[in-house]
Amino acid sequence: MGKVYLVGAGPGAADLITLRAARLLEAADVVFHDALVHPDTLAIAAHARLVDVGKRFGRISTEQRFINRALAEAARNHAVVVRLKGGDPMLFGRAQEEIDALAEAGIECEVVPGVTAAVAAAAALRVSLTRRGIARNVAFVTARHGPGEPEAEWLAVARAADTVALYMASGQAAEIAAQLVSAGRAADTPAVLVENASLPGERRLATTLAALRDQPVPRFAGPVLLAVGEVFRDADAEILPIEQARQKTA
Amino acid sequence: MGKVYLVGAGPGAADLITLRAARLLEAADVVFHDALVHPDTLAIAAHARLVDVGKRFGRISTEQRFINRALAEAARNHAVVVRLKGGDPMLFGRAQEEIDALAEAGIECEVVPGVTAAVAAAAALRVSLTRRGIARNVAFVTARHGPGEPEAEWLAVARAADTVALYMASGQAAEIAAQLVSAGRAADTPAVLVENASLPGERRLATTLAALRDQPVPRFAGPVLLAVGEVFRDADAEILPIEQARQKTA
Repeated sequence: MGKVYLVGAGPGAADLITLRAARLLEAADVVFHDALVHPDTLAIAAHARLVDVGKRFGRISTEQRFINRALAEAARNHAVVVRLKGGDPMLFGRAQEEIDALAEAGIECEVVPGVTAAVAAAAALRVSLTRRGIARNVAFVTARHGPGEPEAEWLAVARAADTVALYMASGQAAEIAAQLVSAGRAADTPAVLVENASLPGERRLATTLAALRDQPVPRFAGPVLLAVGEVFRDADAEILPIEQARQKTA
Repeated sequence: MGKVYLVGAGPGAADLITLRAARLLEAADVVFHDALVHPDTLAIAAHARLVDVGKRFGRISTEQRFINRALAEAARNHAVVVRLKGGDPMLFGRAQEEIDALAEAGIECEVVPGVTAAVAAAAALRVSLTRRGIARNVAFVTARHGPGEPEAEWLAVARAADTVALYMASGQAAEIAAQLVSAGRAADTPAVLVENASLPGERRLATTLAALRDQPVPRFAGPVLLAVGEVFRDADAEILPIEQARQKTA
């Protein structure tokens, strides 16, 4: 009987996984990975069969049940089964369903934490998410919601927190900015968008909530983290079209 | 002219640093580290001079100025200078003061993100901080405050967030629990304390806000993360004295 390791793949760059994650990938017989895990990271699993379980089997609920069954089945036939998830498994990673399903199936499971996107974006921007006198707390939030979940529950936290990191914000940035301003955050609050944090195609944009709400937002191909708060006022971000809007607002 | 790397040392275990962090430590000429970085992690820096800059020079403001100067000075004499901080540098790591001081001194600086304590605690507990239908956001908060900073600013966020991770909560857990209940969180909200997450001396306690407020809290020698929220209701935590209080409350 094998064991399943739920492993954080980190924000993107292959050398931003942990030593423990790298050793498990090297030893893995099978690796079930999300669609967004970088090929260089997967290459560490030199001896493993790789199974891409990202967005392939139609509806999410079906997919999750399939993954649960596949993990248990693999652990019955192999010693080291790795379930590799972008960032950290315990933050927006849907890990609980898999942990619970493995427990029910009587299969041992261990979680290996990873570097989450928000801190990788902060590193890229060289802006600390907390800062003395400016930001003493950070909320990690998603504005996406499942069927039956309340739509704007995230707003209460995002309004109260000094710094807000919004996961899976691609395509929603303008709407999120509008909602934050409506909820009471100042229109000139700095906002940053980091696409492909830690990867060669990384892009960093600096703007404000007002500009993000009112101006065209660039299209993104990779995963995007949107972060909002005073700490980003002098962020190390590139001048892109949206930045001109910021300067007009400022 | 050398370069300064602000590197996350992760939650404790030496194999929970990133590959990039390990390579930088191996190459480092000098490593300035916090008091809490584990000796096994420091041992990776086999060729470096190690400088412990944790809580040694009296008042914090003096200490920070000393560290800023020492980092700049080291970069003028060495190629690879590592500033090693527990967890991730950009979360409660006071990184901004050092980044800004290095920029002013004209010294190149790069940030290498790390695994933060909250996700390591979640991994240890096998409880995802977010969970479909139960928790869609997480606040990372500290109840500690600097001189002149408002005392209970953290409460607004901690009340609004589904899951709350409280950093540097050792010695404050009872007071924090009392404040959370006063602010409107249900007295039977599950709470967990994780001491020395990821290290051999790791301890996990499960309780509730009411029990944490009313019952004696065990003494901790290591760093403690306090986390609060419905996700922790069936946490994989050990039965310790405080747990009996929980069962009475439940």
